[in-house]
Amino acid sequence: MKNNLISTSPIGIFDSGLGGLTVLKNLKNALPNESFVYFGDTAHVPYGTKSPKSIFLYSDSITSFLLNLNVKLIIVACNTVSSVALTKLKKKYHIPIIDVLNPAVQHAGKISKSRNVGIIGTQTTISSNSYKNTFYKLYPDIKTFEVSCPLFVPIIEEGWQNTKIAYDIAKIYLNKFTNTNIDTLILGCTHYPIMHNVIKSILPKNISLVFSGEQVTNQAKNFLSDKSLLSNKNQKSEIKYFVSDAPKKFDELASLFLGEQLKNIKHISLL
Amino acid sequence: MKNNLISTSPIGIFDSGLGGLTVLKNLKNALPNESFVYFGDTAHVPYGTKSPKSIFLYSDSITSFLLNLNVKLIIVACNTVSSVALTKLKKKYHIPIIDVLNPAVQHAGKISKSRNVGIIGTQTTISSNSYKNTFYKLYPDIKTFEVSCPLFVPIIEEGWQNTKIAYDIAKIYLNKFTNTNIDTLILGCTHYPIMHNVIKSILPKNISLVFSGEQVTNQAKNFLSDKSLLSNKNQKSEIKYFVSDAPKKFDELASLFLGEQLKNIKHISLL
Repeated sequence: MKNNLISTSPIGIFDSGLGGLTVLKNLKNALPNESFVYFGDTAHVPYGTKSPKSIFLYSDSITSFLLNLNVKLIIVACNTVSSVALTKLKKKYHIPIIDVLNPAVQHAGKISKSRNVGIIGTQTTISSNSYKNTFYKLYPDIKTFEVSCPLFVPIIEEGWQNTKIAYDIAKIYLNKFTNTNIDTLILGCTHYPIMHNVIKSILPKNISLVFSGEQVTNQAKNFLSDKSLLSNKNQKSEIKYFVSDAPKKFDELASLFLGEQLKNIKHISLL
Repeated sequence: MKNNLISTSPIGIFDSGLGGLTVLKNLKNALPNESFVYFGDTAHVPYGTKSPKSIFLYSDSITSFLLNLNVKLIIVACNTVSSVALTKLKKKYHIPIIDVLNPAVQHAGKISKSRNVGIIGTQTTISSNSYKNTFYKLYPDIKTFEVSCPLFVPIIEEGWQNTKIAYDIAKIYLNKFTNTNIDTLILGCTHYPIMHNVIKSILPKNISLVFSGEQVTNQAKNFLSDKSLLSNKNQKSEIKYFVSDAPKKFDELASLFLGEQLKNIKHISLL
């Protein structure tokens, strides 16, 4: 399948749920003239505990759906999909796809001086070894240390991201990096930027945090610029949101992640 | 649709995931001659954050699937389904269905002396007001106090049910019952029995905990006995397990809930 890429087309972006809105927030701030289509697979959220096979099926349907809306670029704003389904998606669809994993790894590889990099993520992301393998391919001199933090997402979804409980939980997870000499930590889940204050307060000051959203945005900007696909300043930009289910706390969470209210939300079932 | 109910048929039991195994554990201990078919909808777990519409669709497919296996009784071992989809399921299928909500309410109504009853559950269960409404119907003299505890499930799935963090989280939730004069607390989620030690250690000693699994088992036993559907002692009992996805930590969690290893597990996609 090959799309005719044109600059007036929207950028497609998807995630298992609403976490990817933290990536969209970065994108729309840096690319205010672009239009976006966001798909949150809230019927299957969280992907972090699903099998790679199911995750591929879900992301396959979403990719197809976005292509039918003539997107010029797809951003996989989900670490789990980036970890376990990206290769198959790229093989099947001949559309430019930017994931959240590679840009973060590339940035970490550039800035780490100690050549020891930490990664935090969901259980599926971490146990897939996708970060470890990507570092091994791109920067074989870097040693990685992975810690899965399964309670971060529910703590954030409970709205407790700045509480003592969040701090105590984060301390248990982050203490696993003691004696690793990491100077860079990748937040390998799109929810985690919401916890960055707590994470920063626990880690030694010399450790830099890598936010996927920022790195994805830089790559998207460069890609669109290189291919002359940046939208024209005169065109009207708009954002459309699709979700596969309308869960409780939807508005509250969406505003937390996006930093503003969502408009134009449609409910659509794909699988 | 009407099944021919015969005593040699298995009992069907389903849940959004593996939590319902705590109910199965009660059932198989009390009814050792019965055969069971367990369905865990691990592809859609957790139901607690999904919409009532989706929850009905999922439980509709599962009920149909179980009926094709000629079950003589269906046990909805999921509070969320019991709360938001039970009436529609009972209307559509003419098979005996026992849910987890009604037996727990009936028991609480019998034992409460202060006539003040607490309920803890997922966000969807609590905000559906299903416990409140059922009490109002069966025991209008009882005053209910509901608290949703969204972090209990992930804490249990992380294996942290007996930690200081679990205690601190439970304290925040359970402190909401202060000054309510409850003497009975329903654990309105099939995961929660795993946390009962922590919950007991926080609550005043005069508060009795109501476990749905125990009450469902009593009702199932009475129903089968009344209808002469109890299985014959000479027949071989077996348990078959079906899941819609094979998630990480599956074996670990299943053993935690069931108290033993699972055998005969099949992976099947319904939706």
